Amino acid sequence: MDDLLRDIDAVLLMGPGPSCVPPQVYEALARPTIGHMDPAFIGIMDRIKVMLQELMRTTNPVTLPMSGTGSAGMETCFANLVEPGDRVLILVNGVFGQRMADVAARLGGQVETLEFDWGTPVDPGAVEQHLASGDRRALVAVVHAETSTGVRNPVEHLAPLVRAHGALYLVDAVTSLGGAPVDVDAWAVDALYSGTQKCLSVPPGLAPVTLSARAVDKLRGRSSKVSSWYLDLNMITQYWEGASRVYHHTAPVNMLYGLYAGLQLILDEGLDKVHARHTAAHARLVAGLEQLGLEMLVEPDFRLPMLNAVRVPANVDEAAVRRRLLQHHRIEIGAGLGPLAGQIWRIGLMGHTARAENVDRFLTALQDSLP
Amino acid sequence: MDDLLRDIDAVLLMGPGPSCVPPQVYEALARPTIGHMDPAFIGIMDRIKVMLQELMRTTNPVTLPMSGTGSAGMETCFANLVEPGDRVLILVNGVFGQRMADVAARLGGQVETLEFDWGTPVDPGAVEQHLASGDRRALVAVVHAETSTGVRNPVEHLAPLVRAHGALYLVDAVTSLGGAPVDVDAWAVDALYSGTQKCLSVPPGLAPVTLSARAVDKLRGRSSKVSSWYLDLNMITQYWEGASRVYHHTAPVNMLYGLYAGLQLILDEGLDKVHARHTAAHARLVAGLEQLGLEMLVEPDFRLPMLNAVRVPANVDEAAVRRRLLQHHRIEIGAGLGPLAGQIWRIGLMGHTARAENVDRFLTALQDSLP
Repeated sequence: MDDLLRDIDAVLLMGPGPSCVPPQVYEALARPTIGHMDPAFIGIMDRIKVMLQELMRTTNPVTLPMSGTGSAGMETCFANLVEPGDRVLILVNGVFGQRMADVAARLGGQVETLEFDWGTPVDPGAVEQHLASGDRRALVAVVHAETSTGVRNPVEHLAPLVRAHGALYLVDAVTSLGGAPVDVDAWAVDALYSGTQKCLSVPPGLAPVTLSARAVDKLRGRSSKVSSWYLDLNMITQYWEGASRVYHHTAPVNMLYGLYAGLQLILDEGLDKVHARHTAAHARLVAGLEQLGLEMLVEPDFRLPMLNAVRVPANVDEAAVRRRLLQHHRIEIGAGLGPLAGQIWRIGLMGHTARAENVDRFLTALQDSLP
Repeated sequence: MDDLLRDIDAVLLMGPGPSCVPPQVYEALARPTIGHMDPAFIGIMDRIKVMLQELMRTTNPVTLPMSGTGSAGMETCFANLVEPGDRVLILVNGVFGQRMADVAARLGGQVETLEFDWGTPVDPGAVEQHLASGDRRALVAVVHAETSTGVRNPVEHLAPLVRAHGALYLVDAVTSLGGAPVDVDAWAVDALYSGTQKCLSVPPGLAPVTLSARAVDKLRGRSSKVSSWYLDLNMITQYWEGASRVYHHTAPVNMLYGLYAGLQLILDEGLDKVHARHTAAHARLVAGLEQLGLEMLVEPDFRLPMLNAVRVPANVDEAAVRRRLLQHHRIEIGAGLGPLAGQIWRIGLMGHTARAENVDRFLTALQDSLP
């Protein structure tokens, strides 16, 4: 093995993702590659689909991992559900809401955004009022866990407003899935995507997505082809479903082994227990940060357990602290993005990372790294 | 580890890809995940880029692996280089030429195809004549190694015609790269993409691409945004180049470890030796097939070493032969696609698979599996 690979020194990944990967997932990645049409591989695909349905709490038949990272999941949902000229409303309170607006506009959507202050949640009252104005929107989209700010948006309270308006409801669950409840069917979400490298604790590279029957109706009834051949679910579902398994593109076989193992670990532990582990690690972290005199960016009711935004104290060189954490303590945390650059650190407690011993190791290292 | 993963029984992969993966690549996939902005990871990215340049024989600064499979590489090149209304000529003699036409049309290209019989190569004389008719095309695209038929198209002889016409020249090297010479700069190719699961012998999931200075000029001078946010090279190059490394999407870290290891193995062996190994394995296979009384689909001058299309003898159930090979001998070969379904088998000798002992094992197994 070449030096650069041999020299990789494990890092405690407490940034905005990727998160720490459990040994069983590494083992899975290194299982022998077999063909993407091999009946043994089809069996693995079928189990992945069932496990994703369980994790997302949905019976949607169209539930599968796309062959790209979380951002490809975002693009998949917009590319398949938005036709040129469709009116799309994006609720924006961070980088990933902004990214949604960019993605949807490139695909020909007639995009409007409703903006909320970064660090605060989307307000359902304002959304209701906004929806009452103007023409009917074809789709309304929101980020569940805004990774850039640590805010949990009230996606469950927005669902009835969007449904009453007659729009499809699209939710970004990249950072929430596997770390907090995501209840696709009960919330009446029409399309949802995630990524593997956050609370699923699988390396980056796959994007689980699910579409409701209403979303599939929209997809099947399009008057134009999906502009992306690679992400066209009309074709990809023929590979993931049914008896014939029509080849579309060569599935990322070993990454799918990794996802299989990651999902198995979560479901073996039990979804409720996994969520409780995230909540407990978060509470321990917040208590420790406050003891160090640090302040959280987000109000308690809207904090994400898996992504903690902490204000950088005045006169502290935030990049120097992150460098010291990485170089001296082998711990990665994240910087602020956009208007919050230099203002916050983003401390991830995602999936396998969300454990008391990691919180304690981090708090000790942070104390050492602060000036 | 769950049964389905533990029970995976290694297969000698002699289909149209994925190919057999060397142990060093599996080891690489299982190295510890680190952050996509970690300086150690940036170092690995930089080496991957240099190794890809060496493999593709190019000095193009825009040379990097896209975060998707080979088909995402195809879409990347068309999405970045074709603007709505651009005239695009696709030379078609198989499934992947057809796919190019579909991809380009979805992106708004004004697509025309010039078709050649499946199993025969693209004819430069016909292309020259065709280019002389009609308006100037913005881009001409061709598949180097047509995986659906086993034909090598004369991409080096088409290059001067395309250049004289004033078009960008786009080449699909998904199946050829790493198994036969691909000489991007000498051939004056403007855009080229490949995949990891063929002659690079890395599992599927990444798509190396390269763009010439002329292609980059076209990209930078676009009047419309690239319709795909996920594949927009204007942004992705800011993550792969320079000092600032602007975050775009979370790179597929462990897959990139695998690519690193796969490239290293090829360059350590030496490109010429690797190509010679493919040629030798191909000659051994063809001799053995002919001894069994089987016929090749393609004329000797245009055969690919890494993808061998063999005619199914009359009255043989081709699917039954493939099933027996897989179930009794743990060897995968491919079926025919499109008009060649049922007519041919596709026998891959790609990357790590292209060795005399594999050819011999396959020939013995095939003899046993024929009626």
